[in-house]
Amino acid sequence: MYGLFGKMIAQPGKRDELLAHLMNAGGADMEGNYLYVVNTDPNDPDAIWIYEAWRSAEDHQASLKHEAVIALIAAARPLIAGFGERFELTPVGGKGLDGVSG
Amino acid sequence: MYGLFGKMIAQPGKRDELLAHLMNAGGADMEGNYLYVVNTDPNDPDAIWIYEAWRSAEDHQASLKHEAVIALIAAARPLIAGFGERFELTPVGGKGLDGVSG
Repeated sequence: MYGLFGKMIAQPGKRDELLAHLMNAGGADMEGNYLYVVNTDPNDPDAIWIYEAWRSAEDHQASLKHEAVIALIAAARPLIAGFGERFELTPVGGKGLDGVSG
Repeated sequence: MYGLFGKMIAQPGKRDELLAHLMNAGGADMEGNYLYVVNTDPNDPDAIWIYEAWRSAEDHQASLKHEAVIALIAAARPLIAGFGERFELTPVGGKGLDGVSG
């Protein structure tokens, strides 16, 4: 499996608008996507953290060419001030990945 | 909701043994726990990262008094060299939290 945990920083005052776009994209059923969890940050009103788990790095790469993701990136870009920490992971299992293997 | 993403560092060579304990604990059905996803780190053979989503911080606190968690901590402690980054989060939604609100 392939996982990512990363920080996105919204333009001041734009976090909730950015969040709405990200939640919409999470609703699109992406091939090989197991988890796509959007979080805010109690210590930073402009930050959004996303935890993602995918069947493979290739599935994640392929998702970036998905129509819904291209539309998301276009809509979200003006709302994004920058990016913060980013961690690549290998999801192993646990609650949320029951019945998934890879 | 209440979320955590944090790093645990195993004693050298003990990561997989520690992982097995963590996966067992994830199997216990904890009140108010939505996600408990265990990850290894492609860049650090001793590291484990856990993403957790809970109904509330109180549910997370209460879980630490759960028999299965107390047993886990006792079993895992000798295998843990230390802890790394830890992020407190507010999960909002997305795939993996469908149908959950709070």
